[in-house]
Amino acid sequence: MKKFSFGTPEKFVPSFFCKGFRYEETPVSFSEDRFSCRDLGKGFLVEYETEPGTEIWGFGLQLKHFRHTGTKLTIRNNADPQTPTGDSHAPVPFFVTNKGYGIFVDTARYAEFYSGRKKKTSAAEKGGNEISLSTTELYSAKTALETTYMSIYIPVAHGVDLYVIEGGTVGDIVAQYNMLSGGGCEVPDWGLGVLYRCCGRYDRHQIQDIIDYFKEKKMPCDTFGLEPGWQTRSYSCSYMWNPQRFPEHEEFVKSVIDDGYHLNLWQHGFVHPESPIHDALLPYSGDYRVWDGLVPDFSLPEARKIYAEHFRRVAVSLGIDGFKIDECDGSDNTDGWSFPNYAEFPSGMDGEVYHNLFGVLYAQTILETLEGRPTLSEVRSMGALAASYPFVLYSDLYDHRDFVRGMVNAGLSGLLWAPEVRGCRSRKDMLRRMQTVVFSVHCLVNAWNYEGIPWVIYDCEEEIRALLELRRSLVPMLSKAFAKYHETGVPPIRALLMDYSDDPETYGIDDEYLFCEDLLVAPVIGDGSDTREVYLPQGKWVDFFTGEEVSAGRFTVTTEGIPVYRRVSEPVSEPRDGIMDRGS
Amino acid sequence: MKKFSFGTPEKFVPSFFCKGFRYEETPVSFSEDRFSCRDLGKGFLVEYETEPGTEIWGFGLQLKHFRHTGTKLTIRNNADPQTPTGDSHAPVPFFVTNKGYGIFVDTARYAEFYSGRKKKTSAAEKGGNEISLSTTELYSAKTALETTYMSIYIPVAHGVDLYVIEGGTVGDIVAQYNMLSGGGCEVPDWGLGVLYRCCGRYDRHQIQDIIDYFKEKKMPCDTFGLEPGWQTRSYSCSYMWNPQRFPEHEEFVKSVIDDGYHLNLWQHGFVHPESPIHDALLPYSGDYRVWDGLVPDFSLPEARKIYAEHFRRVAVSLGIDGFKIDECDGSDNTDGWSFPNYAEFPSGMDGEVYHNLFGVLYAQTILETLEGRPTLSEVRSMGALAASYPFVLYSDLYDHRDFVRGMVNAGLSGLLWAPEVRGCRSRKDMLRRMQTVVFSVHCLVNAWNYEGIPWVIYDCEEEIRALLELRRSLVPMLSKAFAKYHETGVPPIRALLMDYSDDPETYGIDDEYLFCEDLLVAPVIGDGSDTREVYLPQGKWVDFFTGEEVSAGRFTVTTEGIPVYRRVSEPVSEPRDGIMDRGS
Repeated sequence: MKKFSFGTPEKFVPSFFCKGFRYEETPVSFSEDRFSCRDLGKGFLVEYETEPGTEIWGFGLQLKHFRHTGTKLTIRNNADPQTPTGDSHAPVPFFVTNKGYGIFVDTARYAEFYSGRKKKTSAAEKGGNEISLSTTELYSAKTALETTYMSIYIPVAHGVDLYVIEGGTVGDIVAQYNMLSGGGCEVPDWGLGVLYRCCGRYDRHQIQDIIDYFKEKKMPCDTFGLEPGWQTRSYSCSYMWNPQRFPEHEEFVKSVIDDGYHLNLWQHGFVHPESPIHDALLPYSGDYRVWDGLVPDFSLPEARKIYAEHFRRVAVSLGIDGFKIDECDGSDNTDGWSFPNYAEFPSGMDGEVYHNLFGVLYAQTILETLEGRPTLSEVRSMGALAASYPFVLYSDLYDHRDFVRGMVNAGLSGLLWAPEVRGCRSRKDMLRRMQTVVFSVHCLVNAWNYEGIPWVIYDCEEEIRALLELRRSLVPMLSKAFAKYHETGVPPIRALLMDYSDDPETYGIDDEYLFCEDLLVAPVIGDGSDTREVYLPQGKWVDFFTGEEVSAGRFTVTTEGIPVYRRVSEPVSEPRDGIMDRGS
Repeated sequence: MKKFSFGTPEKFVPSFFCKGFRYEETPVSFSEDRFSCRDLGKGFLVEYETEPGTEIWGFGLQLKHFRHTGTKLTIRNNADPQTPTGDSHAPVPFFVTNKGYGIFVDTARYAEFYSGRKKKTSAAEKGGNEISLSTTELYSAKTALETTYMSIYIPVAHGVDLYVIEGGTVGDIVAQYNMLSGGGCEVPDWGLGVLYRCCGRYDRHQIQDIIDYFKEKKMPCDTFGLEPGWQTRSYSCSYMWNPQRFPEHEEFVKSVIDDGYHLNLWQHGFVHPESPIHDALLPYSGDYRVWDGLVPDFSLPEARKIYAEHFRRVAVSLGIDGFKIDECDGSDNTDGWSFPNYAEFPSGMDGEVYHNLFGVLYAQTILETLEGRPTLSEVRSMGALAASYPFVLYSDLYDHRDFVRGMVNAGLSGLLWAPEVRGCRSRKDMLRRMQTVVFSVHCLVNAWNYEGIPWVIYDCEEEIRALLELRRSLVPMLSKAFAKYHETGVPPIRALLMDYSDDPETYGIDDEYLFCEDLLVAPVIGDGSDTREVYLPQGKWVDFFTGEEVSAGRFTVTTEGIPVYRRVSEPVSEPRDGIMDRGS
């Protein structure tokens, strides 16, 4: 891995805020003079010529797109990514290629990445003024046009640091990127169990009824989540327990914990004038409000301290050890809520930069609040160099296919993603989604906008219990995978191409993924057909449930369950001879 | 109307390129000290406090949103606007309010408009550090939070010119905005007739078959459009007649014109290496290619001259007097085609600015090509100060409801929009869409991707003929409306609130519109119910088709036809006493 510095990089970049940041230079074959840079005054441009056949993946939690070759992506924080523009809950300026390298661009700007572009000059060689109508001349023009570029534009900036990471497989490259930020996060086993979020309107008694249901029916659950209803104000937030819905809340919290469960509290970062910490946060907040609430500058120790002390008082001291950090992304739709891109924060950051750092800095604040207590919490926005944070991303969007793609993409950028189950349109839809959730990093059922238990109306309690028990049985395997994530940077969920970078068949696969050490999961999506196509890369495979041998390659499978296969041979990878040859 | 200059405005702005630009200062009651400005280094910010109850409309061809109060909109050129973000084929930095004024922001940047925002300071008055839990204190905080702002952020710029336009009605304000660019366009009657675009794959004989069909069946048609097939190369363009599909094309063109029809030629602005003008345009083009083609800098006389001379030779000299200028918008989706925002053009413009000016400069080039021959042509992108160009906008998107909203919004920004008919999902869908098209500025049937005649398979030739004949009968009325558009700036199609600005009932209506002098059109959308709700503002109305009196107010109508009403009394408007009072 080698860092290349161009121009005068900005101060407020992901590495500046990354506590575990550890960069050690190692020689790379990617030569610096491949890069050409220009300070355009309004922004900074870095370009390099790409080898023929270059494929590109990454850029964070991309729900709409996987294989980014030949696209334009803008790394912009957005809670409503509706189209494949690069907008994301968790955009990350890091991409990997099939040419033996990946590049991390150390910026929090809405950077634009254009791949496969051609320049005017690339045809100039054709020269002359003759009218070319013969195929020969046309062909000569065509060949002159073959040269393509990767262009990286960082608005506002006058320079940037790039980290070129080389490896034998895409997985190696991603692992090194994750180690750059201190390795994967450490997670308690209970966090890998079942999390059930209760209806936002519920009071303590209604929530107790839900808990009692799980106990009586022996439904596995490790954590219950409280939605906005626990507060006196939630849009914006007061961060104060609601005495009507939660009288004697300390006693309520204690009883739930004494029952052996953990509790997770919903919140977002916009501070209502009624909140006891509002006035103290005034000097440490941005100059615009969101839903009448202050936007704290979580890069400031003062803001973190006020926040952490309050949440220790109202939550952690009671035994609460998990949080759901909502709304820290903002949206270009839904009236474009959240602070403007030109907002100014006391630290000196502007709104654009803070949008891309908000989730990470907020997560850091929560970790300070917890003072070392283990957690696996939730956050709706993350960014670059975030592998070491025990926070799982989620979304209000709800397309099952997109959610599976999110799992495949998240692992390419040091992110964790929960394809949560909410209400469903049918019994089968419920079961299909739950099957996917069981084989994800976070077994999350989110009934925040749902009275009652989502699966009860579909009369599939037995099946759901079996799936949640299956999840419980996977925890040791997940725990081991997270330990490896922490030590080596290899994530627990991976795109096939991360382990099989020599196999072009895997380059477009975003509906299957590798799970923990040696499983391959191919969820069946939707409540229609029970049949799907599966691709197993070269090697020996057995059915995870039956142990029967399954031969590699493409085949169709029909099942009411979820197709899962165990790899019984090491992946074959010959970086130097295969397609994964080094560039330049 | 008064121009306010702040900081150092940029050179490449809409007014700089607007040939008919004529600004005359008149006193306004909107005081300059309402504005506060800041040069943020990375961009320029203008803000002012909005009066309570301020409503906002405008911003160009917005297909997804009408009433913009409390939203964030980014005025960015985009061929695939999927969500209400401000992205548009024709974004315009001009908005109107219900407070007696509108503001035109003279910029070609992707400016951001935030309305109804609140500032940190607006609660600071609350002061103190006491924990406020009483409703009284909370209320005091709330009232302190009532102050809202309109914030206008222009990236990159260090200053901007604003034009504050005041008027008694929204219509008055829009008319003044249109006169600023020379008034509405002049259009030949044939342009207001029927335009039929033939399948892109068709050769001269297949197109002749279509023309013969219209002649034999006595289907009204004034212009036939040729799609990409006429060229040897189309993505990018060669601008050369295809000898295989169009042998002896001069003779073909002549025969069509001799039959009394006009011909319209498809093209876009990306110049294939094979094109005879490619090499001549090299020095006058941007530094990136699109689909291997050059991007000419149409702000340069040299580029226009090369272009115009070529098209006079291959088209105008043959009698062709209409063009369809495609793809001049670009997209954030579909792989983000078109040139990058940081592209550089010989004139000194960058890609961001050129994206927002491309359509207008291209249209100017076409008008130079035509050397004064009257036309009503098509273009897929426009921008600010474009009222005087005889070009109608269109889109590949195809939602009937959005298309009607487009008509209502276009009239608020000096734009013309065609809710074209293509293939339809049912007989009724076809008839409903055609009814809307008949009562639009451009009666366009676009069969570019359709073999045969769209309506024939639905066996509704009689009904379509009747509708096209109805359109023909409306041409004198439309011709008069366009003459008024040219002289006064009052557009032929208007949102109800333009004429009835005192009537809050009209503020949200984006599925009805005023047509020409005194018609109100309320299209029935979709192939489901034949019933819809109609609102007629205060005044006397009669049914356009039956002449029967209809009383004002809200009512439901059920019909297989299109509800159209004629106003037989002048709209009542008391700007100074009504809701349309002046700000400040």
